[in-house]
Amino acid sequence: MLTNPRAQRVKSVRALGRRSARERAGRFVAEGPQAVREALAFAPGTVVEVYAEPGVAERHADLLTAAAAAGVPVHETSPEVLSAMAGTEHPQGLIAVCRPVDVPLAQALGPDPRLVVVLTNVRDPGNAGTVIRCADAVGADAVVVSAASVDIYNPKVVRSTAGSLWHLPLVRGVEIEQALEACSARGLRVLAADGAGSTLLPQVDLTGPHAWVMGNEAWGLEEAVRERCDDVVRVPIHGHAESLNLAMAATVCLYASAGAQRGPS
Amino acid sequence: MLTNPRAQRVKSVRALGRRSARERAGRFVAEGPQAVREALAFAPGTVVEVYAEPGVAERHADLLTAAAAAGVPVHETSPEVLSAMAGTEHPQGLIAVCRPVDVPLAQALGPDPRLVVVLTNVRDPGNAGTVIRCADAVGADAVVVSAASVDIYNPKVVRSTAGSLWHLPLVRGVEIEQALEACSARGLRVLAADGAGSTLLPQVDLTGPHAWVMGNEAWGLEEAVRERCDDVVRVPIHGHAESLNLAMAATVCLYASAGAQRGPS
Repeated sequence: MLTNPRAQRVKSVRALGRRSARERAGRFVAEGPQAVREALAFAPGTVVEVYAEPGVAERHADLLTAAAAAGVPVHETSPEVLSAMAGTEHPQGLIAVCRPVDVPLAQALGPDPRLVVVLTNVRDPGNAGTVIRCADAVGADAVVVSAASVDIYNPKVVRSTAGSLWHLPLVRGVEIEQALEACSARGLRVLAADGAGSTLLPQVDLTGPHAWVMGNEAWGLEEAVRERCDDVVRVPIHGHAESLNLAMAATVCLYASAGAQRGPS
Repeated sequence: MLTNPRAQRVKSVRALGRRSARERAGRFVAEGPQAVREALAFAPGTVVEVYAEPGVAERHADLLTAAAAAGVPVHETSPEVLSAMAGTEHPQGLIAVCRPVDVPLAQALGPDPRLVVVLTNVRDPGNAGTVIRCADAVGADAVVVSAASVDIYNPKVVRSTAGSLWHLPLVRGVEIEQALEACSARGLRVLAADGAGSTLLPQVDLTGPHAWVMGNEAWGLEEAVRERCDDVVRVPIHGHAESLNLAMAATVCLYASAGAQRGPS
């Protein structure tokens, strides 16, 4: 059992809380049974190793079986060491060190995408993770997180995705122009979601293939990006609320898309 | 200018971060320009006093004009005192001490409600606040927060509502049975939103008057509550996501209601 919170291995894992260390090591950390289970189920080849407190094996036997099947080593770890590895958050007795899951833009979009989400300048980890989770829930083909956004391997993003990080193709680090060009080239209608949009969501025909572009929490989309889109769409506000937050707006838009493309099922 | 962070007045305001102190004093704190502006615009009679850092007057002159018009005293306060009053959070230079805005159940529902939200056992302040914000955005008639839920005057709830706390009738402290009975008595169809529901959201006719009942983040609705409802409805999940979080599910349900009741505008 690993019991020394000051061991080099512990420091190395903990350092993965920082973006620079993640990029240097090509690793990130997934915390808690749900994340580790989804990683092992959907991308077992990307799980490098698992650290688990004593007793976790009993509570999550399926998970340790999956790790064994994937040839992923499981290290028994004292609660102190696990806390030290995960930093200040609550890892629920279990973490995994993982390799990145993002794929190149062309691969994520495929030849014939129907529904894609593009994030640009999204800074809040909870928002980014929630949008990825929602894109998964509506069965989107891919999420593209542009270069100017929060890192999708930030521990708070990973946690907010609730396992969806491993469920659908994710792209990161591309410039927004490149992302939009690739969407257009594949026949996707490019729709900006923006509280200042001139077109109301219920008036948009969402049955065809399209991409939603969502911007910064505070100031929305850059003018150049809005102009580049085929339409700028706003979610209707019927009461006195000034706006929706990014995750709420994304949820409304994406469920509208799923409803139009899939019908009432 | 108030400059002594240890003054009794400062301690009294800070204590309002705790539910027990809020209930004893009959006061709560709204932080930041947006919340204070909405409070002064929609319920000026409930604003007891405003504390503002030097310079805030210049940046938010409209707000101080509104305070003066409402006869609300504005105390210039050093940044240290404002931080001490607001606890650890960032009050953005401005707070208001307010009286509760909740109203009795009968008054909130009115004689002929169309769309109502009922929360029971909701524990996360961010979720509760976001649902109130969303209910406002769809123009719901009222939000009922049952006795077993987080306090709507918790500073994190207030912040998450982004001003919507003052925009629509809110009820708190009622038992869930009483809330559901009142909804039914007014002809509202009572719909439970639950990931384990048997009816898919797009298959529900939402054109008539109805109430959405939403439960705990982790375990959903109590069996007795589900049975009491006219239907138990789930938001469809098309991808691999296990679920939506409460705020996302509420957003999808409420926008579906608004779309059905108001049409494409």
